[in-house]
Amino acid sequence: MFQRRLETLDRELIEKIQLDRLKKTLRRIKEKNKKYWKKIGSPEPEDIKSLEDLKKLPFLTKEDLRQNYPFGLACGDQCEFIRFHMSSGTTGTPVVNPYTPADVEQWGEIMARCLSAAGLTYKDVLQITPSFGLFNGGFGFHYGAEKIGCFVVPIGPGRTLLQLKFLKDFKTTAIVGIASYPLRLIEVAKEEGFDFKETNLRIGIFGAEVWSEEIRRYIEREMGIESFDIIGMTETGGVGLGIDCKAHNGIHVWEDHYIVEIVDPETGEVLPDGEEGELVVTTLTREGLPLIRYRTRDITKVISRERCDCGRTHLRLARIKGRTDDMLKVKGVCFYPRQIEEVIMKYPEVLPNYQIIIGKVEGKDVVEVVIEADRQDQYLKERIEEEIYSLLGLHIEVTLKRRGEIPRSEGKAVRVKKFT
Amino acid sequence: MFQRRLETLDRELIEKIQLDRLKKTLRRIKEKNKKYWKKIGSPEPEDIKSLEDLKKLPFLTKEDLRQNYPFGLACGDQCEFIRFHMSSGTTGTPVVNPYTPADVEQWGEIMARCLSAAGLTYKDVLQITPSFGLFNGGFGFHYGAEKIGCFVVPIGPGRTLLQLKFLKDFKTTAIVGIASYPLRLIEVAKEEGFDFKETNLRIGIFGAEVWSEEIRRYIEREMGIESFDIIGMTETGGVGLGIDCKAHNGIHVWEDHYIVEIVDPETGEVLPDGEEGELVVTTLTREGLPLIRYRTRDITKVISRERCDCGRTHLRLARIKGRTDDMLKVKGVCFYPRQIEEVIMKYPEVLPNYQIIIGKVEGKDVVEVVIEADRQDQYLKERIEEEIYSLLGLHIEVTLKRRGEIPRSEGKAVRVKKFT
Repeated sequence: MFQRRLETLDRELIEKIQLDRLKKTLRRIKEKNKKYWKKIGSPEPEDIKSLEDLKKLPFLTKEDLRQNYPFGLACGDQCEFIRFHMSSGTTGTPVVNPYTPADVEQWGEIMARCLSAAGLTYKDVLQITPSFGLFNGGFGFHYGAEKIGCFVVPIGPGRTLLQLKFLKDFKTTAIVGIASYPLRLIEVAKEEGFDFKETNLRIGIFGAEVWSEEIRRYIEREMGIESFDIIGMTETGGVGLGIDCKAHNGIHVWEDHYIVEIVDPETGEVLPDGEEGELVVTTLTREGLPLIRYRTRDITKVISRERCDCGRTHLRLARIKGRTDDMLKVKGVCFYPRQIEEVIMKYPEVLPNYQIIIGKVEGKDVVEVVIEADRQDQYLKERIEEEIYSLLGLHIEVTLKRRGEIPRSEGKAVRVKKFT
Repeated sequence: MFQRRLETLDRELIEKIQLDRLKKTLRRIKEKNKKYWKKIGSPEPEDIKSLEDLKKLPFLTKEDLRQNYPFGLACGDQCEFIRFHMSSGTTGTPVVNPYTPADVEQWGEIMARCLSAAGLTYKDVLQITPSFGLFNGGFGFHYGAEKIGCFVVPIGPGRTLLQLKFLKDFKTTAIVGIASYPLRLIEVAKEEGFDFKETNLRIGIFGAEVWSEEIRRYIEREMGIESFDIIGMTETGGVGLGIDCKAHNGIHVWEDHYIVEIVDPETGEVLPDGEEGELVVTTLTREGLPLIRYRTRDITKVISRERCDCGRTHLRLARIKGRTDDMLKVKGVCFYPRQIEEVIMKYPEVLPNYQIIIGKVEGKDVVEVVIEADRQDQYLKERIEEEIYSLLGLHIEVTLKRRGEIPRSEGKAVRVKKFT
């Protein structure tokens, strides 16, 4: 562990720290940004007597952050900030998160915890494949790696042949990337006759996209690695909100830095542990853009607040099932792309590149799942259709394509295409 | 100044520090890498009695570094290194430079000096346009900016429209980039009716390419900024070897970190101050890849070792005139692309995009300069041809093209095309 004492605090102490830091965060918002403070109902820090009182505060949404582009909700003077990161903005105005020096320090600290939780030490060679710059991925791993002192191969995205060459040339032991990137690495490795077993690679840390258990097992098997699921987003200060540990029994969220709640996406009501709902994050140590009850749109649940087999006491979330805005509704049936992924990836003939195509024909919903398989087999097609039907009660046509026929994406994978 | 005491040391003290650190560097090579030590003639550190003794050591060339890809000349165990940067490798095997934590610290220090010399403080907003990752530019500015605590816009290369938007949205005061990038910014700004005068931009720091005084004046005039020429390369530990100060009377090289010599490119003989030759660099504080008498191929001269008007005492070099491998030889006449640039950029009708095309027709050398101009004017063409002839004694055909007809490059500009 990177910070054993902090990562194994008793729950009582965690909650005491959370309450103190919540008040401090509200105080900062009150002092630095009156508009933001009013927006959350002008709470007096001293009126927050227990963590329960957090529930009285309103939610903050992505729309709120966008409407305040670039710095409308920032807490600090311009000269307190030393950098920012930004959401891609592909679906509207981007969200900008400014960092104070303390925020960069905090980020490095939680990322170092994440890397340590995945088993990295100063002896490791870490190949960083997310992009550096506005996207938070590259720099998140950079700051964490600097804290643990491992050797970084700062290659960034793309150039897959060079990535494979570097795995060998620099004796890379750990690789990080967005969750669909290892699929591309595996694909190119097969084309090139590249054998991951001849490398020193043993750890993969992936995130920034929803990826199923089935894809996970495929990646682990093909690359011969143990994989770790890391979460976090621009709004929360970047990648590193949490990661699963070697026990692989849920994603630890660093509770001395963040309070997480699970709420009903419809009513906003806080749900009990074990029930699935939308993840809501309150930051406790962020200065530039503190969040109060930020609705992340991620669907998950609290698995446990008990001490984990790894010794850490910070609560564990289920892996992200989908995003509220990923939810598909066809002929009145609601489902997430990940549910389809789980079905198709059970079949070893199926390659991990698929698209869900949704449209309307003569006013009626139609949905099709296009998958790549090495065999063009009517029996396979029908079996998958049957299995999806028995899961969702919805007939979805499966179309088989040959290897390489579905276009690859440079960044996050495009899994759903809608036509209206 | 970032480190006033160190940047204004008396020459005697600079030379004392240089001698101490040169011995220490030789000791490190001897201890950490016997092969490297033998390659430079197995010098005993204690045999180096004065800086004059440096001349007894052999040169190191780019070829030596390439042949030892990736870590054949590295001084340290793998676990001492925390990252590396790499030359682009477009002209052969890349050169890899591994960094220890002390090297990253050293790099941040010299880059903070460079940023301060250009007038940046914690109040500035710095837009970083070189790429982050394997190329040393992005991270060099990143580490320097962290030390002075200014606000960084970490956008990286390309996306020129977004660059212009950010100049306004984030009130950018300083921009850094490879030297041809401001030309692209100016071009797109003109197309978009974007006015640099409406921004807060006042400083530009450019390097990584040879750029003439004429291009410099063009950039300063069009963008309304003061520009600074920064030097450095992967081999020396990245950008930041030196920069010109507000006196704009030569490029200060940080002499407590580097010894520079100017040698005759043919004979290797050390030239006196004021004579033009090849820059040779010895590093004094680099651990991962210390350099002993590295031939940079850059052509320059020592302007002065006296105290500068800015107060700094570190020696000043002329701006880089060209690279030994950039030198063109046509019909027995040798010249550098920068000499052509200086001529054509005197004409206000000419746009700063040009190409020098060299080939053979029926065994004879032919050379053509293709330029863009807003007027297609036979008189202009002839005047430029005459002026080039009177400078070089060589007839070079000038071809005029319209604005936008010469292809733009995403990275370093392609100024010379050879056909054989």
